[in-house]
Amino acid sequence: MSNEIRKVVLAYSGGLDTSIILKWLQETYNCEVVTFTADLGQGEELEPARRKAEMFGIKDIRIEDLREEFVRDFVFPMFRANTVYEGQYLLGTSIARPLIAKRLVEIAQETGADAISHGATGKGNDQVRFELTANALDPAIKVIAPWREWDLRSRTQLLAYAEANQIPIAKDKRGEAPFSVDANLLHTSSEGMVLEDPGVPAPDYVAQRTVDPEKAPDQAEIITIGYEKGDPVSVNGVKLSPAALLTKLNELGGKHGVGRLDLVENRFVGMKSRGLYETPGGTILLVAHRGIESITLDRGEAHLKDELMPKYAELIYNGFWFSPEREMLQALIDKSQQYVSGEVTVKLYKGSATVIARTSPHSLYNMDLVTFEEGAIAYDHKDAAGFIRLNGLRLKTWAARNKKSGA
Amino acid sequence: MSNEIRKVVLAYSGGLDTSIILKWLQETYNCEVVTFTADLGQGEELEPARRKAEMFGIKDIRIEDLREEFVRDFVFPMFRANTVYEGQYLLGTSIARPLIAKRLVEIAQETGADAISHGATGKGNDQVRFELTANALDPAIKVIAPWREWDLRSRTQLLAYAEANQIPIAKDKRGEAPFSVDANLLHTSSEGMVLEDPGVPAPDYVAQRTVDPEKAPDQAEIITIGYEKGDPVSVNGVKLSPAALLTKLNELGGKHGVGRLDLVENRFVGMKSRGLYETPGGTILLVAHRGIESITLDRGEAHLKDELMPKYAELIYNGFWFSPEREMLQALIDKSQQYVSGEVTVKLYKGSATVIARTSPHSLYNMDLVTFEEGAIAYDHKDAAGFIRLNGLRLKTWAARNKKSGA
Amino acid sequence: MSNEIRKVVLAYSGGLDTSIILKWLQETYNCEVVTFTADLGQGEELEPARRKAEMFGIKDIRIEDLREEFVRDFVFPMFRANTVYEGQYLLGTSIARPLIAKRLVEIAQETGADAISHGATGKGNDQVRFELTANALDPAIKVIAPWREWDLRSRTQLLAYAEANQIPIAKDKRGEAPFSVDANLLHTSSEGMVLEDPGVPAPDYVAQRTVDPEKAPDQAEIITIGYEKGDPVSVNGVKLSPAALLTKLNELGGKHGVGRLDLVENRFVGMKSRGLYETPGGTILLVAHRGIESITLDRGEAHLKDELMPKYAELIYNGFWFSPEREMLQALIDKSQQYVSGEVTVKLYKGSATVIARTSPHSLYNMDLVTFEEGAIAYDHKDAAGFIRLNGLRLKTWAARNKKSGA
Amino acid sequence: MSNEIRKVVLAYSGGLDTSIILKWLQETYNCEVVTFTADLGQGEELEPARRKAEMFGIKDIRIEDLREEFVRDFVFPMFRANTVYEGQYLLGTSIARPLIAKRLVEIAQETGADAISHGATGKGNDQVRFELTANALDPAIKVIAPWREWDLRSRTQLLAYAEANQIPIAKDKRGEAPFSVDANLLHTSSEGMVLEDPGVPAPDYVAQRTVDPEKAPDQAEIITIGYEKGDPVSVNGVKLSPAALLTKLNELGGKHGVGRLDLVENRFVGMKSRGLYETPGGTILLVAHRGIESITLDRGEAHLKDELMPKYAELIYNGFWFSPEREMLQALIDKSQQYVSGEVTVKLYKGSATVIARTSPHSLYNMDLVTFEEGAIAYDHKDAAGFIRLNGLRLKTWAARNKKSGA
Repeated sequence: MSNEIRKVVLAYSGGLDTSIILKWLQETYNCEVVTFTADLGQGEELEPARRKAEMFGIKDIRIEDLREEFVRDFVFPMFRANTVYEGQYLLGTSIARPLIAKRLVEIAQETGADAISHGATGKGNDQVRFELTANALDPAIKVIAPWREWDLRSRTQLLAYAEANQIPIAKDKRGEAPFSVDANLLHTSSEGMVLEDPGVPAPDYVAQRTVDPEKAPDQAEIITIGYEKGDPVSVNGVKLSPAALLTKLNELGGKHGVGRLDLVENRFVGMKSRGLYETPGGTILLVAHRGIESITLDRGEAHLKDELMPKYAELIYNGFWFSPEREMLQALIDKSQQYVSGEVTVKLYKGSATVIARTSPHSLYNMDLVTFEEGAIAYDHKDAAGFIRLNGLRLKTWAARNKKSGA
Repeated sequence: MSNEIRKVVLAYSGGLDTSIILKWLQETYNCEVVTFTADLGQGEELEPARRKAEMFGIKDIRIEDLREEFVRDFVFPMFRANTVYEGQYLLGTSIARPLIAKRLVEIAQETGADAISHGATGKGNDQVRFELTANALDPAIKVIAPWREWDLRSRTQLLAYAEANQIPIAKDKRGEAPFSVDANLLHTSSEGMVLEDPGVPAPDYVAQRTVDPEKAPDQAEIITIGYEKGDPVSVNGVKLSPAALLTKLNELGGKHGVGRLDLVENRFVGMKSRGLYETPGGTILLVAHRGIESITLDRGEAHLKDELMPKYAELIYNGFWFSPEREMLQALIDKSQQYVSGEVTVKLYKGSATVIARTSPHSLYNMDLVTFEEGAIAYDHKDAAGFIRLNGLRLKTWAARNKKSGA
Repeated sequence: MSNEIRKVVLAYSGGLDTSIILKWLQETYNCEVVTFTADLGQGEELEPARRKAEMFGIKDIRIEDLREEFVRDFVFPMFRANTVYEGQYLLGTSIARPLIAKRLVEIAQETGADAISHGATGKGNDQVRFELTANALDPAIKVIAPWREWDLRSRTQLLAYAEANQIPIAKDKRGEAPFSVDANLLHTSSEGMVLEDPGVPAPDYVAQRTVDPEKAPDQAEIITIGYEKGDPVSVNGVKLSPAALLTKLNELGGKHGVGRLDLVENRFVGMKSRGLYETPGGTILLVAHRGIESITLDRGEAHLKDELMPKYAELIYNGFWFSPEREMLQALIDKSQQYVSGEVTVKLYKGSATVIARTSPHSLYNMDLVTFEEGAIAYDHKDAAGFIRLNGLRLKTWAARNKKSGA
Repeated sequence: MSNEIRKVVLAYSGGLDTSIILKWLQETYNCEVVTFTADLGQGEELEPARRKAEMFGIKDIRIEDLREEFVRDFVFPMFRANTVYEGQYLLGTSIARPLIAKRLVEIAQETGADAISHGATGKGNDQVRFELTANALDPAIKVIAPWREWDLRSRTQLLAYAEANQIPIAKDKRGEAPFSVDANLLHTSSEGMVLEDPGVPAPDYVAQRTVDPEKAPDQAEIITIGYEKGDPVSVNGVKLSPAALLTKLNELGGKHGVGRLDLVENRFVGMKSRGLYETPGGTILLVAHRGIESITLDRGEAHLKDELMPKYAELIYNGFWFSPEREMLQALIDKSQQYVSGEVTVKLYKGSATVIARTSPHSLYNMDLVTFEEGAIAYDHKDAAGFIRLNGLRLKTWAARNKKSGA
C-alpha cells in the first residue's frame, strides 16, 4: 500500500478552517483536491463554498443537498429506538457524521481518489466517526486528518497560515469565538470557551435555534403528529417529506423553547465535555414516538427495545453506525415497528413537549380490543392468584432457605 | 399447613373500601383483625382511621409514620439508579408497596397473626407487589386478597354491603368517583373512568399535586440541591432529612407545575393502562441526580448503570423489590455512588426542571484535573490516530471480506 | 365467549396417559375429538396411535411427519444463536412444544374445533409452552389441560379409570416407571423418581440414546460438518436434509457417548428440577457452529450475540417462541449469519466433541486477508500506543480523582 | 510531566527477550532498572532470573511467589461468575496480567521509580492489560513498551543485539520456536507459527500440561470438590489453600486430558488469533461451580449472572480488571455467593469433566424444603392456569391485533 496521495476528497464547508485544510492538503501532499459540501440543514448558504473552492483552483466541486437522505435514512431509523445517549443527548451531531463520510467515500470511489480528509480535531468524537465509517465502507481508502498531522496548534498560527496563503479571513473570525457550533437539521450544539466550566450556567447568547422558554408564547400550542410504521409522516394532518417534517417541528419546537439541553457527556476518546444542545424537533419526536409506541407495542417488544437502547446509542455516539452490530440491532428494532402507526397529540409550552393523547388503528390498549368478533379477551381476576403464587414460589423457597440457613 | 385463619393484619386506610374489607374479614374468617395504617405522605389524617377501626371493635390498632423510612430506604436507593419504567414512569406507586407489605409481615410476626390482607384489586399490579413481598419476607405468611375472593363485583354491591353492615358511607362516595387516586410522598397517580380513553386528554381537574404549568409563576426559580454519596441531602444549602427534603422539592416542583405525566404503561398482569401521574419532587431529583453523576461518574460506571436500569426498573415495577436479583443490582448501583457528591443547580419554570450547573469536589471533569500535583493527565491528539486505527481494524477486515464475498 | 366445547384437537401419542385424556374429554365435554399424532423423531411407531384412536371412535385422525419442519424451522434457527439455557441445557424439549402447539391450532382452525388439549402436567414447563403458543397464534382458541382439571391425582386412580373405561394398559405400564422420558429428534430427557435426588448420580440404565462414554469406541472419529449461512448442510461432504443431518449426527454422537448432561434447572413455574438429558447431535452442532462463527463473525457480531443469548434461551425455555420479542431477537441473530459458511472438523471421542479445525471462503481470520487485491490491511504496532492511551485516559482520570478524594 | 526516566521496574522472566529488554532499557534510558520476577505457577525456576539480573548489574532484584494471591484474589473471584470469553476461553492469560502489573506499580511506588516496563508485543492483548492496570492504579506512572519503541523487528535482529551485548543465548533459542507459550497456575496457552492456520489441526507436541485424552487412563476417576461461599475449599474432603487446590485439580485434570481447547478468538486490538489452551483445573472448576450454583442459587440470581457474564468476561479479556465497572459487576456477583456452599461430585474421563451429583446444606432444590418446620411450600397445580393465562394475556392481545390489522 503506497503512501503517496494523488487525489483527496475533502469535507469542505467553505469556512476558514476547512479552507486552511484545503490549502495545506495541496501544499503538503501536492495532490488534487475534490471538495464536497453538503447541505444537512445547517442553515448556511452553500454557494459561497463553491466560489471559495474555485479560488483555490479546485476543478471538481461537489455540492449536494442531503437533507432528505439524512432524515429518512439516519435520523428516523435512530428515533425508532427512542435513542438517547447517557439519558439525555439525542445524538444530533453523531448521526450526521456517517452520512458525510459515506458520501466522501463514494465520491472518492467515483473520482478515483485514494484518500478522504475532514476538519475534525484530534480531541473530539467526530474524527472517530468519520474514520470508522470510511474503514467500514472502503477498507482501502486512506483518511487524512490534518488537525492530527500539522503543527498549526493555535488560533494565531492558523491565522498566520491563512494570511501567508491569501486565504480570506472574515472579520468576525479574527478574534477567538466565545464558543464553537455544529449544526444540522436535527440539532445545534455549542461547546467550548464560555461553556467550559460545567459549574457556570450557559450565557443566554449561546442558544441559537430555540427561543428562551421564558420568552416563548404565553399560549400553549397543541399539535398532532401522524406515524406510519415507526416513522412520522405528518404534522397537524399535513403529509410531509422527512426533511420537511423535521423542519416544521424545528420551527414549532424552536418557537416554544423546546429541546434545550445543558449537559456534560463522556466522549469516546476518554474525556468529559460540556455542551449546550438544542434539538427542538427531535425532542418532540422522542416523546411522540414513545407516545405512539405506548399503545401499539407489546410489552415484550417495548422492554427489549429499552434494554438495548443504551448499547445502540453508544454505538452511534462512538461512530459505529456502519458496523455489523449496529445493523443487527437495527434489524431487531425495525422488526418491532410494523404497527407503530397512528396519531399523537403533543402540547408545546414554554420549553416542554408533552404527549396528551394518542390513537392508533393498531392499538393494543385493551379498551380497543373489547369488540373483536370472536368475543372479548377476558381478564379473570382470579387468574391473578395463580399468577402471583407461581411468581412467588421461588421467592418463598429462597426466603425459607435463608431463614433455615440463618441469613 | 392449615387453612384456618385466626388473626390477620390488614392494610387499613380508614376509607370505605378497606372498611368493607375489614368487616368482610371478620365475617368470612371469623378471625381477629389487626389494622395497620401508615403515613407515607399521602396527605391524609390518620386519626379517623383509628376511630373507625375502634368502631369495628379492633383491639390492636397500629398507626405509623413511615415517611422517613420510605424516602431513605426505598425512594433514595431507587433514584441512585436514575430509575424510569418504560422511559417515563418514576415508579411512585410501585416503590411504596414493598414497605407497606414489609410492615404488615413484621406486625404479623410480632402479633402472631397467620395472614395479612390488602385492598388491592385483582386487575392491578399492587396485589402482586404486596404478595411477592410477603412471600420473600416470610414464606409461611398467608395473604388474603378480598377483591379476588369475594363476590362484591360492583359499586352497587359494595354500597349495599356497607349499608347492610352499618359501615358509614361518606356523601361523596355514594356516586362513582370519576377516577381513582393513589398518593404518597413521591407521587400522586390518577387512573380509570375519565382517564380510560388514551386518545382523550386528561381533564384539568384530575391533577392534584401540581399546578397547571400555564398557571405556574411567570418567574423561573433557581434552586440548588446538595448530594452526598448519591443521595440528596440539602436544598438551597439547608440540610434536610430525606422526607423533609422530598417534601420541600414537592412544594417547589408542584408550584412550578413540574412532574406531570400522561402515559400508557404495560402492567405486569398483562394489560395496558393509562394514568396521569404527578411526581414533582421526584422529577427534580431525577434530573439533578443525572446532573451530579455527569461529572462524578466514570463513563464505564455510567454506561453500565444505564444498561441495567431498565431491568432494575422492571423488577421494582413488577413487585420484586425484595428479591435476590434486585439486591444484586442494588449492590452494583451502590458501588458506583461513593463519589457522587456535590451540588446541582436546577431551574424550575412552568412545567420543566432543567439542570443548568453542577459542581463537585470529586469531579472527573477534566478541567478540574489539570492541577494534580504530579502534573496534568495529558491528552496527546496524536494518540487518537492509533486509537481509531485499532478500533477500525476489525471494520476494515469486515468490509474487505464483504467486498470479496460479494455482499 | 361461550364455554361450550364442541370439538377439540388433542395431542395424542397413543400411550396410556393421552388415551385416558381422550376418553376423559369425550366424557367430560361430550365433544368430538380430533387426534393429532406427530413424528418429531421420538423414535416410536405412529400407526398404533391410529388404531387406538379408531378404537375410541375418532373419525378425524391426523398423523404427520414433522421432522423436517422441526429441524429446519425450529432447531436450526435456535442453534444459530448458540443457545444454551443456564449454561448447560440445549432446550431439546422446549423447542419441540411450539411446533406441536402450532399444528394443534392450525388443525383446530381447519376443522372448526374450538379448543385444543394436551397431556402436560400442572407442575412442568410444557403446559406453559403449549398454551402460550396457542395464545399467540389464535387468541380465540381455548386450551383444555386435563391434568389441571380432573381429579385423577395418582397412578392408581389413572389405572382404575383406564380399566373402568376399557382402555388397554400395556404390561409395563402397570407399575410405576422409575423415571419419565421425553424424546424427539434433538434429544431425550429423563426425569423424576430415581433421578429426583440431585445428590445421587443417575443410574446407568437411565441413558437411552447415547452409549456410556466408557463403552464408546477406543478409536476417535474425525468428522466434518459443512455450513451455509449459519445452518449445517452436510456431514463428511455429503449434503443432507435438516432432519437427515441431525439423525446422522445423533448416530455419530450417540456412538461416541457425546451429549450426556446431568443437571438441575430452574423451571418457569418456580421450582428446580433435575434431569438427565442426552443431545448427541445437538452437542456436536453447538461446538461446530461456534467453530465456524469463530472465523466468520466479526467481534461486534459475536459479542452482541453472546450478550443476548441468555435472554433468547430464557424466552424459548419459558414458552415464548411465538412472541414478538423472540422474533425481534431472531431478526438480529439471522442478520449476522450471512457469511457463516464453511467447514468445521470435529473430533468425537468417548463423550467429547472437539473442534480441531475450521475453514471458510468468508473467513475474517487475518491470515486470509493478506492477499486482498488492494493490498494488505496493515497492523502497525505503534498504533497500539494511542489505542491504549485513549482507552486508559478515563482510568487515569478516575484513579487521580480517587487519590485526590482519598479513596 | 518530565519525560526523563530515572528508574524503571521491569517484569523480568530471566529469558532471552526480557534480558534484551533489560539491556535495552539501561542503554536507551540510561536509567536504573529494578527487576521483578513473579511465580504465578508457570512452572519455571526463579533463581536463574536472579543470577541473570545480577549479571546485568541490577541491584534491586525482586522475586515473589504470588501463587496464593493470584488464585485467591483473581482466579476465584472470576470463577464465581462462571466466566467464559466468547463461549470458550477461560481467560487464563488475561487474569494474570493485572496482578503482575499491580505489583510492578506497587514496587515502583516503593522504590520511587517513575516507570514500569513489560515484554508484551505490540500486536497482542497483554500490552493493553499491563498498561490499563497501571493507568488505573497510578495515573502518574509511565509505561515503557520496548516492543513498540525499538527497531528490533526480527528474530535475527534480536539475536544480533543479544550477541552484541553479551547476553547469553540458550541453544534452543537460536532457532525460531515452532510456537510461543504462556503459562501460569490457571493455564498454558500456545500460539503462533505451527498453530497459525486455523484450518490445520494443532500438532500433538503442542500440548504441555494435559495428556492426550486418548492416552488418558481407561478408568474414570470420581472426585468431590467442596465449596464455601462461592469458592472451592477442598478436594476429596481435604481442605486446601487456593493455590494448592488449583494445583491439585491441575494434576487430576491434566492426567485425564481435561481442559484442552483449540480456538480462534477476537483480540481487543482488532484481529483474530488462534490458540491451543490447556486449563485442566479451571475446566473442572467451571463445571463444578455451575453444579453447586444449580442447587443454591435462585433463578433470578442465576439468570442475572448469566446475562452479565459476557460483559464481565469482555472486561477482563480487554484489560479492565481494575476499573470501576468491573468492580461494580464483582459487587453484584459476590452478593449472590453467600449460600453457594456444598459439595459437587465430578467424573473425570478421557478429556471430559462431568458433574454427576451435588449437595448443599443451603439447597433450594424443592425436595430439601419439604420438611421446613412451618410446613411445606405447597405447589398447587391449579395455580398454573392463572399463571399461564396472565402470561398469555398480552400475547392474545397481540395476536388479536395482528389478525385485525391483517399481519
